[in-house]
Amino acid sequence: MTVEVDRFRRECYRRGAELAGLLGDWTAGPGPLYRKLADALARAAEEGALRAGERLPAERELATALAVSRATVVGAYDELRARDVVERRQGSGTRVRRGRRPPRSDGRVRGGQAGRIFQRLIDGPGPLISLACAAEGGAGEVADALDEVAAHDIGALLGTHGYYPRGLPALREAIAEYHSARGLPTHPDEVLVTTGAHQALVLVAEVYLRRSATVVVESPSWPACLDVFRAQGAELVPVPLDGEGIDPRPLAAALAEHEPALLYVMPTYHNPTGLMTSEARRRRVVELAAKWDVPVLEDNAYAGRALAPDAVDLPPLAAYAPPEAEVVTVESLGKAVWGGLRVGWVRAPVELIERCARRKALADLGTPVIDQAVAARLVPRMGEISRRRAVDQRERFALLERLLRERLPEWTWRRPDGGSSLWVALPGESADVFAQLALRHGVEVIPGSAMDPTGAHDNHLRIPFTHPPEVLAEVVDRLARAWTELRRHGPRDVPRLHPIV
Amino acid sequence: MTVEVDRFRRECYRRGAELAGLLGDWTAGPGPLYRKLADALARAAEEGALRAGERLPAERELATALAVSRATVVGAYDELRARDVVERRQGSGTRVRRGRRPPRSDGRVRGGQAGRIFQRLIDGPGPLISLACAAEGGAGEVADALDEVAAHDIGALLGTHGYYPRGLPALREAIAEYHSARGLPTHPDEVLVTTGAHQALVLVAEVYLRRSATVVVESPSWPACLDVFRAQGAELVPVPLDGEGIDPRPLAAALAEHEPALLYVMPTYHNPTGLMTSEARRRRVVELAAKWDVPVLEDNAYAGRALAPDAVDLPPLAAYAPPEAEVVTVESLGKAVWGGLRVGWVRAPVELIERCARRKALADLGTPVIDQAVAARLVPRMGEISRRRAVDQRERFALLERLLRERLPEWTWRRPDGGSSLWVALPGESADVFAQLALRHGVEVIPGSAMDPTGAHDNHLRIPFTHPPEVLAEVVDRLARAWTELRRHGPRDVPRLHPIV
Repeated sequence: MTVEVDRFRRECYRRGAELAGLLGDWTAGPGPLYRKLADALARAAEEGALRAGERLPAERELATALAVSRATVVGAYDELRARDVVERRQGSGTRVRRGRRPPRSDGRVRGGQAGRIFQRLIDGPGPLISLACAAEGGAGEVADALDEVAAHDIGALLGTHGYYPRGLPALREAIAEYHSARGLPTHPDEVLVTTGAHQALVLVAEVYLRRSATVVVESPSWPACLDVFRAQGAELVPVPLDGEGIDPRPLAAALAEHEPALLYVMPTYHNPTGLMTSEARRRRVVELAAKWDVPVLEDNAYAGRALAPDAVDLPPLAAYAPPEAEVVTVESLGKAVWGGLRVGWVRAPVELIERCARRKALADLGTPVIDQAVAARLVPRMGEISRRRAVDQRERFALLERLLRERLPEWTWRRPDGGSSLWVALPGESADVFAQLALRHGVEVIPGSAMDPTGAHDNHLRIPFTHPPEVLAEVVDRLARAWTELRRHGPRDVPRLHPIV
Repeated sequence: MTVEVDRFRRECYRRGAELAGLLGDWTAGPGPLYRKLADALARAAEEGALRAGERLPAERELATALAVSRATVVGAYDELRARDVVERRQGSGTRVRRGRRPPRSDGRVRGGQAGRIFQRLIDGPGPLISLACAAEGGAGEVADALDEVAAHDIGALLGTHGYYPRGLPALREAIAEYHSARGLPTHPDEVLVTTGAHQALVLVAEVYLRRSATVVVESPSWPACLDVFRAQGAELVPVPLDGEGIDPRPLAAALAEHEPALLYVMPTYHNPTGLMTSEARRRRVVELAAKWDVPVLEDNAYAGRALAPDAVDLPPLAAYAPPEAEVVTVESLGKAVWGGLRVGWVRAPVELIERCARRKALADLGTPVIDQAVAARLVPRMGEISRRRAVDQRERFALLERLLRERLPEWTWRRPDGGSSLWVALPGESADVFAQLALRHGVEVIPGSAMDPTGAHDNHLRIPFTHPPEVLAEVVDRLARAWTELRRHGPRDVPRLHPIV
């Protein structure tokens, strides 16, 4: 019985948290909180994100999720009733009025957890400091490569029609050499160029996933990637990590029980924890996948971003795979060089590349060619670019660690092997509620609950150290103030806080 | 009864023609025809394009579709039985053996008609001259714009993270000014940058189309675009063209009868006919759409490619729309400047752009930024680029007309207003069969039947005049030889022909 009540409470809480995710930075701008909440809910109903007939969370439930008083939610619901956006019927709660929603998608993934991450990219940072994305400016080498393309390549490129669904041949060759030199012999025909690692995941998901297919994923994982699988109608099964990578015992159980269509992992480096999967664990993961005949999709978007001086990435899982295993490797220049290039790739057996190429042609007929030509000149220099950029990366990481130890000594974390964020545990508090407080202090954080299909890790946060030092200092200052307030007053008192943006 | 038999025959024929489309250039390479056919069918079964348990067309039916003797098909089917790819059961025909297909997509659109167009882009031209794509090299101005980006823009761009799901602000402003200067006042917030017009169609389709939605399309239309709607599970309803655009009487009937989710038209310029929709017809189309409350998706990918000297494009449909009409405009630099840039856009009401932007973020987080920066510098020059390029375009068009009149005097066509292809009628012959003969003479053509959901226009061909003059001459020579052979022997005698490639 207690378990049932607990589960019910947890589900109520999840619904509130999901709605909070949908509303994003709803406290921005002037005016009383209740009216801003009503505006945000009305917008969601107008867009169809809240469906006609859908029941809104109970007032208390939404108040907890948004860290506001129940009176604020009551006021917002009253306002929405006055505006005819919702109706309230005895015993049936508050529901979105029928007939308001146009017969079209609002563009969001149903049940998705990455809505606010995508929305932040779409809207730009605004007055907030956003920790939703761990992205930084580009390497100076891009400008050199661009000069070379302008001087040497563009004439020949303009002589062609410019449609390359598989990718520019020069780039596919450079990528094949890159992998071959790093312990994974690769032929250009085993490479498909994509618009970033993200599109690579989309294409692979389209080929592998039927509706209601299961994907085994790490917990935590990255919501924007998980939403790619959700958009294909897949069910997600989380498996926890230990200090070496995905935990083999629950992994074996999940593979055996769910007959998944795909196993999705991030061995180099895991997002959000920054963990590099050990060599022994790499062998174990591909053995298990081969045993249960499950294809592995490895996402190494953070390859080349080791933190320790002189640390070297291990070769991809594909390099450890027994012949009977099927491993699809996704990588990118986005983190190692610059996200603006939007150049990533799939490395897989030829027949799989062929299938993905057809999906690529259907998606956009090919990635823009000039950025590909620039990438072709950058791939051979990725080693030196990574080494040079690691200096900055280490300094920012050290600064963030120092600031957090000073200002938020209760928070704990495991030191990442690479990547660009810190995965922080908040002792005894919900990160969802903390995220609402942080918003009102001008910082957008993505709570850990969004990084697991079942909402686990709800006392964790990801803090990227991609911002410049002065911004990092400001971030920690604002987080510390929000934390103090949460500790002092608890979430129920939060309406006393004022939005500072 | 006769009607029923006719319909049955037509359906058999369609199945054969669809399979022919799937097999592509199956006659290439050495060896007897029956073995090459067996190889091509085995490959299709291996990839899952032919499903396990699927019945192959009757021998006579496939022989007609492929313009080979029945003996060739019998030999191929025997070979496939010997290889265990198919099985034959009394009364149940020849079927692909069960259990051969891996549980994943082959990447093709089910029921699609653009498979061979996409596949040609994926594979490159090979030893054939392909008329599948009407694409040419890029304008020299691209190199100038690239120099300017390298000299002036790249530094500032590298200072940003480079993720712009809506598109680079400078490019969105340039596009808004472009439309505003051409009779369609546009704000940058009404613009979403996409990876070519093709991705623009994908995103709009994802927002508007639910499974089993109906899309009203022109007949003929362009299969690669129709496949975008098919991939969303839409049903397509064709409406014919007259000399001014889509025919208003059957259009009104289709809008009334089918309650479509979308009306898809190409007013500037229609592909494959090259027709520019007249001003009066533009008004009529948007009036009808508004009356029946159907959103209009207009695809002006060929804007800027007028054929007549000093001809000017009419403004998009959106400029003629009454306030209650919803018109989404798609355009691109692909045909006007260069396909390799892969820069297109959606121009639509702000709330629609917002929905599409979410799908764009989910698809690839944004189009590569350097190509966008180059595009931003090219959009203001599109007028002069179009005028300069029209000279070449007119010369090639005149050459193609002259060659066809000389060598294929039976073929007829309506002079296009713009674009880059000729829509040719073949008197009394199936273009599907002719396409098989043309293949064996080293020319790939897309038959008209692929350009209508019901297989209409099966005596038509699209011939692009994007190839250089010497290639155009070779194309017409090969087509003329294939035509002579078809007229002399008829399709049943075709096995006497030998592949020349």
